[in-house]
Amino acid sequence: MKPPAADPALLEKLVLANRVLYRYGVVDGFGHVSARHNASSAHFLLSRNMAPALVRREDIVTFDLDGAALDAEGRRVYLERFIHAEIYRARPDVQAVVHSHSPSVIPFGVTGQTLRPVFHMSGFLGEGSALFEIRDVAGDTDMLISNNALGAALATSLGSRSTVLMRGHGSTTVGTSLEQAVYRALYAEVNARLQIQAKSLGEVTYLNAQEAAKAAAINDTQLPRVWELWRQEIGQV
Amino acid sequence: MKPPAADPALLEKLVLANRVLYRYGVVDGFGHVSARHNASSAHFLLSRNMAPALVRREDIVTFDLDGAALDAEGRRVYLERFIHAEIYRARPDVQAVVHSHSPSVIPFGVTGQTLRPVFHMSGFLGEGSALFEIRDVAGDTDMLISNNALGAALATSLGSRSTVLMRGHGSTTVGTSLEQAVYRALYAEVNARLQIQAKSLGEVTYLNAQEAAKAAAINDTQLPRVWELWRQEIGQV
Amino acid sequence: MKPPAADPALLEKLVLANRVLYRYGVVDGFGHVSARHNASSAHFLLSRNMAPALVRREDIVTFDLDGAALDAEGRRVYLERFIHAEIYRARPDVQAVVHSHSPSVIPFGVTGQTLRPVFHMSGFLGEGSALFEIRDVAGDTDMLISNNALGAALATSLGSRSTVLMRGHGSTTVGTSLEQAVYRALYAEVNARLQIQAKSLGEVTYLNAQEAAKAAAINDTQLPRVWELWRQEIGQV
Amino acid sequence: MKPPAADPALLEKLVLANRVLYRYGVVDGFGHVSARHNASSAHFLLSRNMAPALVRREDIVTFDLDGAALDAEGRRVYLERFIHAEIYRARPDVQAVVHSHSPSVIPFGVTGQTLRPVFHMSGFLGEGSALFEIRDVAGDTDMLISNNALGAALATSLGSRSTVLMRGHGSTTVGTSLEQAVYRALYAEVNARLQIQAKSLGEVTYLNAQEAAKAAAINDTQLPRVWELWRQEIGQV
Repeated sequence: MKPPAADPALLEKLVLANRVLYRYGVVDGFGHVSARHNASSAHFLLSRNMAPALVRREDIVTFDLDGAALDAEGRRVYLERFIHAEIYRARPDVQAVVHSHSPSVIPFGVTGQTLRPVFHMSGFLGEGSALFEIRDVAGDTDMLISNNALGAALATSLGSRSTVLMRGHGSTTVGTSLEQAVYRALYAEVNARLQIQAKSLGEVTYLNAQEAAKAAAINDTQLPRVWELWRQEIGQV
Repeated sequence: MKPPAADPALLEKLVLANRVLYRYGVVDGFGHVSARHNASSAHFLLSRNMAPALVRREDIVTFDLDGAALDAEGRRVYLERFIHAEIYRARPDVQAVVHSHSPSVIPFGVTGQTLRPVFHMSGFLGEGSALFEIRDVAGDTDMLISNNALGAALATSLGSRSTVLMRGHGSTTVGTSLEQAVYRALYAEVNARLQIQAKSLGEVTYLNAQEAAKAAAINDTQLPRVWELWRQEIGQV
Repeated sequence: MKPPAADPALLEKLVLANRVLYRYGVVDGFGHVSARHNASSAHFLLSRNMAPALVRREDIVTFDLDGAALDAEGRRVYLERFIHAEIYRARPDVQAVVHSHSPSVIPFGVTGQTLRPVFHMSGFLGEGSALFEIRDVAGDTDMLISNNALGAALATSLGSRSTVLMRGHGSTTVGTSLEQAVYRALYAEVNARLQIQAKSLGEVTYLNAQEAAKAAAINDTQLPRVWELWRQEIGQV
Repeated sequence: MKPPAADPALLEKLVLANRVLYRYGVVDGFGHVSARHNASSAHFLLSRNMAPALVRREDIVTFDLDGAALDAEGRRVYLERFIHAEIYRARPDVQAVVHSHSPSVIPFGVTGQTLRPVFHMSGFLGEGSALFEIRDVAGDTDMLISNNALGAALATSLGSRSTVLMRGHGSTTVGTSLEQAVYRALYAEVNARLQIQAKSLGEVTYLNAQEAAKAAAINDTQLPRVWELWRQEIGQV
C-alpha cells in the first residue's frame, strides 16, 4: 500500500543531507542517505540512482522494506537500496541511514580494527563499530549489498550499534533522525582519521562506556547548532 | 554589576576571530573563542550557542567570571562557558581564550604526549602543553567543562602555560590578545601535524626553552601581518 | 594517412577529462590524458603541450601510433606522447590512457610495493599494478618516456593490467573508455592513500581475484552517475 | 648607488610568485620570495613586511646586498631580508630566492633527514638538501636570520645546492629564475610529503645523481607550461 506524500520538510532535509555529506567528503560520486517515511514506518525515502551532490527534491523515491520502489517511474535506483530496507526492518528505532565509502573508515574494515571514540564528538561509537565480512555470508561477490538476504545479514552484523564497517567496501551509520545520522557519518570519518594518528603516537585512551554514553547524550542536544551551519553553507535546495 | 558596552572594535575583532578559526579548520560547528571585556576585567565576551562561522556582532553575550550571562535575553549559551570564566579568573594576564577540537591536537591528549615547539612559529609551546584528565577530577563524565568546579580544575591544569590538552575532548589556548590567542590556536594545530610527521621520521630536536621564549617574543611583533591577511580574507563582518 | 575529423562529442569529453583530472588532483601542471580516435584505431587524440586544466577543444592534436603529430601546426607537443602511442599499439582494447604523477601512487613505485584493491571501487587493480623500472631498459635517463622504444618497453611492463607504476616518475592507467580511464586514474590515487593508511594499522585483507573482477564489472555500470557529477562540476567546456 | 627602476615585467612576475606560493600552501601569512634586480646584480627586489598573499607591485622594495632597503620610505621590512641578501652575494648564479615554512619540509630539518628526489619533478634535489643548524653558529637564538652574519652562515650551509633546511624554522630554495625558484619551492614541499609516505612503506629508491641531473635539465624546459597555469589561476595582479 502506498503511503501518503512525505512531509516536504523531511524531503528538503533529505536533499540537504545529501549535499552536506558531499561537501564534507563523506560521500563522493557514490554513497547514499535515506530517511524513514514520516507517515509510514514500513517505507523509506531515498534518491534515485545518482550522485548525492546533485540530488533535488524530485529525485527522491519511496521504497518499501523489501527495497521495492513505489514511484521510480522507470528511473534507475541504487543497487544497494537493500542496506536501507533491511536496517529499517530490523531496527525500529532507526529513522535515517547513511551508506558511504568515507575514506578514513575504510582502513579499519580491511584490517579488522574497531572504530572507538577518540573524543566526545564520537560518543556514538561507544560500543565500537561492528564489522561485516561479506565472504562469511556469500563467498566471493561483487562486494555489494544487492539483495534482501545480504541486507539482512548486514543488519544482523550492525546489531544495536550505530556503525557497521563493511570489509573492502565502506560503512553504514544509522541515527534516530537525519540530523543525527549525518552527524554520525561525518564524525565517524573524523574519528577514524584521529584514531589512525593517535595509534601512531602511542597507546590510546578511548572514552569508556560511561563517558561515551554520556557524551553522546549531551551532544545530541547540540545538533541544531551544526545543522544550522550546514543549512547556511548549502543554501537553498 | 553590568559593565559598560564593550568597545565596538573588540566586538568586531571577536567576530573576525570566530570566522578565522573556522576558515582555518581550528573549529568546525563546535568550539568557541572569547575575549576579556575591555572595560571590566571581571567580565568576558562570548557568542551565544551557535556555530562560530555564523557569529555576528549581535550574537556576542557578556558573561561574568561565574559564567553567568548578563544579557543573553533567553538565547541559549555554550555549555562550556566555564572554560573561559575560570581561566579569566585564574589568569589575570589572559585577554582571550580559544577552546576547540582542533583535529591534529587530539591525538596528543589521548596518548599523553606533549606538544612541543617543532619550529619557531610555535615558540609559545616552549613549556610544553599541559594535560587535563577529567577522570581525575570527576570520574566518568560527559567530558564537558559544564560547571565552575570543572572549569577551575582545567585552569589549574593549564597553570602558566599557553595550551592545555583535554583528554578525549580537545584543547584550550590562551593569549594576551585576541590576535595572539587565535594565532596560537592555529599554530598549535600546525605544530601538532608537523610533530606527528617528524616523530615518524626520527628523533626530533625541539626548540629549547631559550629558543622558544625568544622566538615567541619576536613572533608577537609580527602578529599585525597575519591579522591583516585574515581580515582581508574574511572581508566585512 | 590522416583520419577524418574526430567526433566533437569525443573531443568535448577529452577536454572534460583533462579538467576533471586536475580538479581531483590526479594531474597538476603536468600529466596528460588521451583517447583513441573514434574513426581510426591507428590514431589518437591528445592535447598540445600545456597544463591539463587549461585545455580547450582547439588544443587537441591528432597523433599516429609512432607518436607523430598530424596537425600540430608548429605547436609544441608533449615529450611523453610515446606513452600513449605505444600503449594504443600494444593494447587494441584500450580506448583511453591517463599518465600522471598522482601523489599517493608515487610511494608505491619507489618502494617496489604493489597497488592492490583495498575496496570495491578499485576492483580494476585486481591483478595488482605493474612496475616499470626505466633503468632496466635504458640505464640512467631523464626518467621520461621520450621515444618509441621506451614507450614500447612501458607497454610491455603494463601487459594486460590496468595500471603501471613508473619508478621515480608516476603511473599510467588505461581504460576501454575515457570515462573508465579517468575513473581508474582517480580511484588508483584514492586506493593508494587508503592502502598506505591500512598498512599502518595492520595486516590488510585485499579483494581477492574473484571479488575484484566482479566489483570492477558492476562498477562499470555506474560510470554514468559519476561522469554526470563531474560534467556538472566542470560546467561548459 | 641606487639602480634604475626595475623591469615592470619582473615586478609583475614577483607579485605573481608571491600569490602562487600562497595559493599552493608553500607560504602562509609568513615566508617571502625575492628576485635579483634585472639591472643591477648588487640589488634585489622583495616585498615590504606583509603577507605574501596581499603583495602588490607598489609593495616591492629594492635592497642592496647588505640587506639595506633603498626605497622603503618608512615602511616595515622583513626581519629576515638577510637570507636573500647573503645568498645573492654568495651565489652569482642565483636570480631568485624563496624562504618558507612549507609544512612537509619542516619534519626533515628537525630530524636531520635529507630531502632526496623521490621523482623526476624534484631532480633539483639531486645533491640532497643542505641543513643549517643555527645553534652551531649563534647558540640559543630566536631562530631568525636577522643579520648579515647569520645570512652568510646560511649561505655557506646552502653551498652550491638548491635547497637548505633550517632546523626548527623552515627552508630556503634558490633558482636561476623566479619561475624556477617557485617551481622548486613547491615541488620541494610535494617531494617531502611523498618521501615521508614512501619511507613508511619500505626502502626507497631515489633518483641517482645522473637521473636527477638529467631530469632537472629536461624539466626546466617545461616551466612555461606550469607558469602559464599559475598566471591564469591567479589572474590580473
